[in-house]
Amino acid sequence: MGRTLTEKILEEHLVDGEVETGEEVGIEVDQVIAHDLTGTMAWLQFEALGLDEVQVDVAGQHCDHQTYQPDFKVSDDHRFLRSAAGTYGAYFARPGTGILHQVHKENFTAPGKTLLGADSHTPTAGGLGCLGIGTGGLDVATAMGGAPYYLDVPEVVNVRLEGELPEWSTAKDVILELLRRFSVKAGVGKVFEYTGPGVESLSAHERTVITNMGTELGATTSIFPSDERTAEFFERLGRPEDYVELQPDEDAEYDDELVVDLSEIEPLIARPSMPDNVVPVREVAGTDTDQVLVGSCTNGAYEDILPVAKMLDGREVAKRVETIVAPGSKQASEMLARNGFTAELMAAGVSVSEATCGACIGAGHVPASDSVSVRTFNRNFEGRSGMEDDAVYLCSPEVAAATALTGEITDPRDLDLDVDAPGFEMPDSYIGTSEADLIMPDEAVDDELVKGPNIDEVPLKDPLGADLTGSALLKMPDNITTDHVIPATQEVSVYRSNVPKLSEFTLKRVDETFAARAMDADGGFLVAGENYGQGSSREHAALCPMYLGIHAVFAQSFARIHKSNLINFGLLPLTIDEATYERIDQGDDIEIVDDAVEAVEGGREALTIRVNDDWEATARLDANERERELLAAGGKLPHTRQQFADAAGEGA
Amino acid sequence: MGRTLTEKILEEHLVDGEVETGEEVGIEVDQVIAHDLTGTMAWLQFEALGLDEVQVDVAGQHCDHQTYQPDFKVSDDHRFLRSAAGTYGAYFARPGTGILHQVHKENFTAPGKTLLGADSHTPTAGGLGCLGIGTGGLDVATAMGGAPYYLDVPEVVNVRLEGELPEWSTAKDVILELLRRFSVKAGVGKVFEYTGPGVESLSAHERTVITNMGTELGATTSIFPSDERTAEFFERLGRPEDYVELQPDEDAEYDDELVVDLSEIEPLIARPSMPDNVVPVREVAGTDTDQVLVGSCTNGAYEDILPVAKMLDGREVAKRVETIVAPGSKQASEMLARNGFTAELMAAGVSVSEATCGACIGAGHVPASDSVSVRTFNRNFEGRSGMEDDAVYLCSPEVAAATALTGEITDPRDLDLDVDAPGFEMPDSYIGTSEADLIMPDEAVDDELVKGPNIDEVPLKDPLGADLTGSALLKMPDNITTDHVIPATQEVSVYRSNVPKLSEFTLKRVDETFAARAMDADGGFLVAGENYGQGSSREHAALCPMYLGIHAVFAQSFARIHKSNLINFGLLPLTIDEATYERIDQGDDIEIVDDAVEAVEGGREALTIRVNDDWEATARLDANERERELLAAGGKLPHTRQQFADAAGEGA
Repeated sequence: MGRTLTEKILEEHLVDGEVETGEEVGIEVDQVIAHDLTGTMAWLQFEALGLDEVQVDVAGQHCDHQTYQPDFKVSDDHRFLRSAAGTYGAYFARPGTGILHQVHKENFTAPGKTLLGADSHTPTAGGLGCLGIGTGGLDVATAMGGAPYYLDVPEVVNVRLEGELPEWSTAKDVILELLRRFSVKAGVGKVFEYTGPGVESLSAHERTVITNMGTELGATTSIFPSDERTAEFFERLGRPEDYVELQPDEDAEYDDELVVDLSEIEPLIARPSMPDNVVPVREVAGTDTDQVLVGSCTNGAYEDILPVAKMLDGREVAKRVETIVAPGSKQASEMLARNGFTAELMAAGVSVSEATCGACIGAGHVPASDSVSVRTFNRNFEGRSGMEDDAVYLCSPEVAAATALTGEITDPRDLDLDVDAPGFEMPDSYIGTSEADLIMPDEAVDDELVKGPNIDEVPLKDPLGADLTGSALLKMPDNITTDHVIPATQEVSVYRSNVPKLSEFTLKRVDETFAARAMDADGGFLVAGENYGQGSSREHAALCPMYLGIHAVFAQSFARIHKSNLINFGLLPLTIDEATYERIDQGDDIEIVDDAVEAVEGGREALTIRVNDDWEATARLDANERERELLAAGGKLPHTRQQFADAAGEGA
Repeated sequence: MGRTLTEKILEEHLVDGEVETGEEVGIEVDQVIAHDLTGTMAWLQFEALGLDEVQVDVAGQHCDHQTYQPDFKVSDDHRFLRSAAGTYGAYFARPGTGILHQVHKENFTAPGKTLLGADSHTPTAGGLGCLGIGTGGLDVATAMGGAPYYLDVPEVVNVRLEGELPEWSTAKDVILELLRRFSVKAGVGKVFEYTGPGVESLSAHERTVITNMGTELGATTSIFPSDERTAEFFERLGRPEDYVELQPDEDAEYDDELVVDLSEIEPLIARPSMPDNVVPVREVAGTDTDQVLVGSCTNGAYEDILPVAKMLDGREVAKRVETIVAPGSKQASEMLARNGFTAELMAAGVSVSEATCGACIGAGHVPASDSVSVRTFNRNFEGRSGMEDDAVYLCSPEVAAATALTGEITDPRDLDLDVDAPGFEMPDSYIGTSEADLIMPDEAVDDELVKGPNIDEVPLKDPLGADLTGSALLKMPDNITTDHVIPATQEVSVYRSNVPKLSEFTLKRVDETFAARAMDADGGFLVAGENYGQGSSREHAALCPMYLGIHAVFAQSFARIHKSNLINFGLLPLTIDEATYERIDQGDDIEIVDDAVEAVEGGREALTIRVNDDWEATARLDANERERELLAAGGKLPHTRQQFADAAGEGA
């Protein structure tokens, strides 16, 4: 049976398990990347692992989310990250160098490699035939230590491309078309593998636009073959040696297949407030627009901004529209400047920003009240712009430029200004990133960690104890989100490198007194209804309760990712039935009657709890063998640390 | 007797009084400018005046301090400012167009004019022979309505320049030399008027660097003559028609004179944390540096950044130094880009920002802990960078560039890198500001005010009442600052366009319950020790107590500017002796026994207060006739509003 490209790369990197859909496998990680919001915790965790240096081929630390450095705590984080990269052998991309996916693509992404990134848009690398997967910081930390990355083998969907894109339609419209047809949940547990005759009509860069925003389909990742167009890209990047051809077998079997005829794709736009709320641009044309933003890891490359510069050259943006171009990398910025486009953009009334994620995460250029913002970004979730009642549209750079020129959402085909279609243009050669900006490990400035006063060690949990007792410190209703547990507001986020301080905010939105009560108690429990821990995959929502001494969460059900995070941080996720939930009151004394170590290690599913020394009920632990090992060890960090110590001992 | 240039301009604009040192005069205002932190309140006050349009020749509204727009309230402020400019006939410089002083200089500053700016660096215009004075938003609002601006005629100091600057010494070093010799208080109540043979050796731009930072001497303003070098500048700016020659009389008499020999000036630097803490660069050479920032209204022009670009061309900044260039205007940005310098700066490892005040006010690029920041800015007060224990140095662009190259503070004369002295270069012609960025009144987008939910009307006080009674709502010790009354933190500042909300923070740092208690009370008093209202000139520190119903402040003494603000907002600043201060307790009932209207209008200095209907004491009002008129009317805003209404009535 022929193999898909995904299966080939997984098998090439297989360390544990078998590559069969739905089965858990462990794979070797070649490269890792993190940014300034996820990197600090990843490096503190790496420090806790006790190793001298990273064990992967390439580790990269970028500073792209908080380039404005609005607080000394952010600047201290950047300083710490540079020192961690230097100390442990990662490269360091300074603030202003660009967005991690762009900078990594320009310098390190390579076909056939596995890339783990502490950011959801890591699948960008799939456009170059690299298996890029986004995950949490703890997985990145352990991968940097050399541990395998575990995942359930995803279904592989064959996205067969036919035809060629017509004038004014772009790669962005291809992924918007997929979002229009399917939904933001369509890709969960799946890899989108692009095949068919349409593939060769797309340059390597255009492919990365599609794989980048495949994340919005919910996919594990997306991937294109590595072919002559890929070779051409590496040639012009100046690193032809990183190219290898990679194709699925001709008789590869896919779990599903869908066909996209590129020639039928027209300019599309995602309306507020979901990336799959997609319609043809003409359907919303004429909508008054107040802000146009061009950039992001989706459309921030030189090739993305070039069409905008060509369209605006010699013209002026509408006075009612604030137009900002924030390149995705300094390479893009420098090429635009060197080729004369930056000056023309400025003359046209565009504000040209440094390379940054910036506005895409609500860190700047927050829309005004009752305003419309049109962006080339990848997400328009309500409130993500930094403003609750926002109206954010997502589209191609060409549609954004047409909109900036007219002041209303405009299909560029209907633009009444004699503007030629810029088409897609690939530069003959790319400018490399300056060595002053991308600091390689052998040029590192620091050789020891520099921790500002807000940066604290990461706490390590002790191994699971046999006798778990304590009170029900907090009883919560259904649908508690990770935003309830640890909010993502700026006020709270600045403490993300300081777990003791951050923990003071734990569940504050539910009960202001919780964190203080938990610190005073010597261990305890959380009680919740259905769907506990839904929402963002934020690891701190497990880490902070761990720090506060929570042994276990009793809930009627758990959100999948948060359950996995609880296990990673050594907290037992125990399911209780509705009657038990109803009967437990906040403040009740709870004892897990079983020897917890025996129960967890022995694979027992049903545990008995005794409440107020008065009545008993059953709590269930649904966890596989690997997960039970983590729980017994006190979580993934102490578990991996012990593994590394054992391996070092054996080696000695 | 010959006249100074300052006297000539004052006399040319005289509306009230006589031009004699120390006497109060009212002058006509030709031009006004405001920025995004001061403009919202100024326009709300202008709205309250009830006029249809601004009465000055040129009114300009800039958005430069908060270009990152980190909150929708900031974006709403920008939106409101555009609508106010359009509605009332001011030009509007969009966010990203640049810093008000630079943009105004490029487009509107003219010799012989009076310019009132709601920003302390308005004296920048003095480099072109314009009398630029920084003041509060209320003065700008009333000036926009056509009211005279009142000031005490300053002493005029003759700064006689001789010789020419040697290689590597710059205009920045001239003003640093003055700060070194004198102090940040030396200029209070003075104008520094530059004369002598050295004047013609300085280009118009270099002169503005000196007058800009004359503010740090505490001067009312600084001014250069308008001569051939000025004419050359206006020629290259493309507005030769704005040039007129202006010189002091040859026999002008000055209140004081000092001589600066330019040929003896060497590269200087202000050490932390005061602009007058100046030493030769060589004295601190070798200090490890973490951050270099080039830009600001002092050194953000094309002519300032060009030397940096030349020095870094083909080189790389040290990897330990984060180097950011933030041009002062988009004109500077565009010229740098168009002439190829932006690309070279980027290649050298510089992060090139949009045009912004940004880091200069702590809004971004806040230094990391225990780090050294070297800046071409004008202020290094402790904490201004956004970080309490900062170490900020101030120097010329050349010194900043040398420091960026080596990673330690470096006198460029000692630079071991074969770098040629870039010298001062003036472009043959300047690029104009794009019409899309600088929106002139006849091209305005808006014709009515757009107020986001955080923007509220400005409150107007009723005329002074005859019977003033109430309780001593708060008793405070000596040295209460305006930062105690209304803090400048981001959390509070976002409400600067919303007086009811902002008022909730009034004196919170002294007593959390004060604002609520004052709102509940129907009028009342504040009691304070010595030096009440010291620190920043923040008008909100008078406006918010006014909103809360405070009739008067009883204090042992008042800080000068705050006393004037209290009068401007209709609050009686009443001096009491120590015994009275000691005897009054918080909560005491106080009655001003006199008919307050009669006492204030009648010029009475001693008023009698009766406390708890039990004992009496004297409170003194030290105010001139004009100030008493303001107090009787309920403050400057209702007073000016009434004047305009009367004038309109007479005209009808």
